[in-house]
Amino acid sequence: MNIAQALDDLALFLGDGLSRSKSDLDLHGRSESHFPLTPPDAVAYPRSEAQVQRIVQICAAHQVPVIGWGAGTSLEGHGLAVQGGVVVDFTQMNKVLEMRPSDLDVTVQPGVTREALNQELRATGLFFPVDPGANATLGGMAMTRASGTTTVRYGSMRDNVMGLRVVLANGQIIETGSRARKSASGYDLTALFVGSEGTLGLVTELTLRLHGVPEATSAGICAFERVGDAVNAVIDTIQMGIPMARIEFVCADTARAFNAYAGTDMPECPHLLVEFHGSADSVAEQSQRFAEIVQDHHGLGFQWSTKEEERRALWAMRHNGYYAILASRPGTRAIVTDICVPISRLATAIEETQYDIKGSTISGPILGHVGDGNFHAILLVDPDNPAEMAEADALCKRMVTRALGLQGTATGEHGVGLGKRFAMEAEHGAGWHVMASLKAALDPQNLMNPGKMLP
Amino acid sequence: MNIAQALDDLALFLGDGLSRSKSDLDLHGRSESHFPLTPPDAVAYPRSEAQVQRIVQICAAHQVPVIGWGAGTSLEGHGLAVQGGVVVDFTQMNKVLEMRPSDLDVTVQPGVTREALNQELRATGLFFPVDPGANATLGGMAMTRASGTTTVRYGSMRDNVMGLRVVLANGQIIETGSRARKSASGYDLTALFVGSEGTLGLVTELTLRLHGVPEATSAGICAFERVGDAVNAVIDTIQMGIPMARIEFVCADTARAFNAYAGTDMPECPHLLVEFHGSADSVAEQSQRFAEIVQDHHGLGFQWSTKEEERRALWAMRHNGYYAILASRPGTRAIVTDICVPISRLATAIEETQYDIKGSTISGPILGHVGDGNFHAILLVDPDNPAEMAEADALCKRMVTRALGLQGTATGEHGVGLGKRFAMEAEHGAGWHVMASLKAALDPQNLMNPGKMLP
Repeated sequence: MNIAQALDDLALFLGDGLSRSKSDLDLHGRSESHFPLTPPDAVAYPRSEAQVQRIVQICAAHQVPVIGWGAGTSLEGHGLAVQGGVVVDFTQMNKVLEMRPSDLDVTVQPGVTREALNQELRATGLFFPVDPGANATLGGMAMTRASGTTTVRYGSMRDNVMGLRVVLANGQIIETGSRARKSASGYDLTALFVGSEGTLGLVTELTLRLHGVPEATSAGICAFERVGDAVNAVIDTIQMGIPMARIEFVCADTARAFNAYAGTDMPECPHLLVEFHGSADSVAEQSQRFAEIVQDHHGLGFQWSTKEEERRALWAMRHNGYYAILASRPGTRAIVTDICVPISRLATAIEETQYDIKGSTISGPILGHVGDGNFHAILLVDPDNPAEMAEADALCKRMVTRALGLQGTATGEHGVGLGKRFAMEAEHGAGWHVMASLKAALDPQNLMNPGKMLP
Repeated sequence: MNIAQALDDLALFLGDGLSRSKSDLDLHGRSESHFPLTPPDAVAYPRSEAQVQRIVQICAAHQVPVIGWGAGTSLEGHGLAVQGGVVVDFTQMNKVLEMRPSDLDVTVQPGVTREALNQELRATGLFFPVDPGANATLGGMAMTRASGTTTVRYGSMRDNVMGLRVVLANGQIIETGSRARKSASGYDLTALFVGSEGTLGLVTELTLRLHGVPEATSAGICAFERVGDAVNAVIDTIQMGIPMARIEFVCADTARAFNAYAGTDMPECPHLLVEFHGSADSVAEQSQRFAEIVQDHHGLGFQWSTKEEERRALWAMRHNGYYAILASRPGTRAIVTDICVPISRLATAIEETQYDIKGSTISGPILGHVGDGNFHAILLVDPDNPAEMAEADALCKRMVTRALGLQGTATGEHGVGLGKRFAMEAEHGAGWHVMASLKAALDPQNLMNPGKMLP
């Protein structure tokens, strides 16, 4: 690696589009999680695909690592330059390039955030559904195969990215996918790049699938005495083909934290929060059918509404749950775990995790996208207390082992990055080494986001 | 390649599980399409994954090509041993291994056909939705990324394969995916193998996503004077978020052929055939809303029903369309083309194709899965007439060029195989060579279904 020469060449090419200020390096060396500060050697701010290409070419010529950066909201340290190199920050490439309402698709640059996209779509009656919570960039979301509350109905980034333009490690530009809604033509390169976490190339354009804003939305909430009852209600709802747009779980500890935070008196037990999208008649019908299922599973009083204000109130616990949990132990940081299991194993996974956390010194309420079998524990830790950090790490590792034992996955939506790399061999076995072969084929110098995900 | 030694080793290992009879070789050298007879050197009938692994190891040791075979229903010559070698016929590996109704998934061997699977699922209230028409094997359907009439609602094999077990070219076995409904863990190997047409390995197990049998189904049919009106009705329906389970287009020529075949008096103009799945109330509501849309687009009398007998009658033209078309010119063979375009371009694609076909000497009615932008022309040809075959080939090539010019794909559902290989460079450009790099990484001797899809 000849970093000095690479930085000279980049500075000459990019001018003030290359930053080496300490504040900028630190900003791009920090993650939203508990990883130590890891500043890169420089931050590049390309404004065009041609600039991205040239950055990659310069870095390749000098064996300098290249790491993509979106909104910096990754929870697993995806954007950290653990082997040094240049972070490519896509925030200047933030244009919506073309909206095609009659095809329900849109082409964007990678630095557009999901909220900015939805803002621009407002007049069209369409929206982009994938919602990981954070206002991440669409490039970052594609690279981590993000999902979220609406995935049970609208799918994850896997399902909503139709095509990409990518600058490969050798500087070549390829276009994957097409605007057709399906294709049987060749290897699914789009799917290979979605979730590749910047290890195979840098995305410079995305074509995304859009959905019609539903005519009506109903939202509801219901308490349960036992986790198992809540999960069984979800299984029945899925099996009956009732198309939930969102179905979220919060545990008793979350309800307790929310009561303390918001001065409410929610029952301090597990809850399901649900949302239906459709016509006015169909959301009413779906809500009623869900109410019947809930009753079969000993749910305690399902309340629902189609009015926006009331919906917001019913879902307040979900919207503010994370902040309520943080406020329950001031001064701590949160380690947000992330596993996903088959739905029939979800009650077991949650209950065993709760039991494990209760046996530790750490507080860790649980929230989850229960329709997908995906949940998080919010482990509250003092980052300056090594014993607590070690205990949290051990809890997280046991969650992963438990998920894999239940035929699930080590990460439902946050990705691998640095934080879940330890789980790859256990989850994928020989498949992990196949991933390494694919990586070596496309990035033989190992310059694209090295040190992440792969062996 | 040392074929003699490989066949000796295979015969020793497989006993009567290896066939070299002329009838068997011919059976596996024939395709449902117009490709010349291409018998392999032998046909192996494995009964277990361990046998598949050993077959691949023996073939690899002697540089002998290995070609997977399901029900032989491919339309693009996928299973033909164009460079000689051993066809691996999966029909003996036809067990449903495990049904898990509460997770809505099932694990099967690759030789199970989709009809056999749905038969086995009957008691569960679940079904597997991907329906390419032919009673293909699920292994074959995964390998060609098959789709069909229900894809507009339930997705293609891309969306319904959750995980695979695969024997790679080096004999190693990997497991891809998991039983979790989503994952952000590592490269999406499942998606890489789905649609790889046997060029990266042989699938020995598939875990598939299931769906609840709808409580109610409504089906309908409507005539239109113009293709554009029919397509615009579909666009509106999609944009309004009305969840069609099926929406099929047939052209005026198909209606005419059907009238002649069945003695009916359908209006001889383009038709849409539609199906809705849901609760009794919701399918009624959807049908009514669709009826309103149809009226906005000058549809001629939408008729619909939820009763099975009536539904069958309304859809008779779709179910028998292919046979009606074949009967319209006795003694001919059909070349079934397959392109897919963005829905806004669909009317243009169909009309230009019709105009092109009308200017030829060939008859070619059009049918399509119009909700996906996917359609077929059924080109009726005399295979012994070289001029006609050449004309059909030219029509097919122009359809592909047209599809790519409209930002579509050369194949929506039939795959590449031999028949669409000519289109790969035009469709994927540098991406095609990326596919070749991936292939070389996993199959450096080029033994897995060589001569197909790749450069």
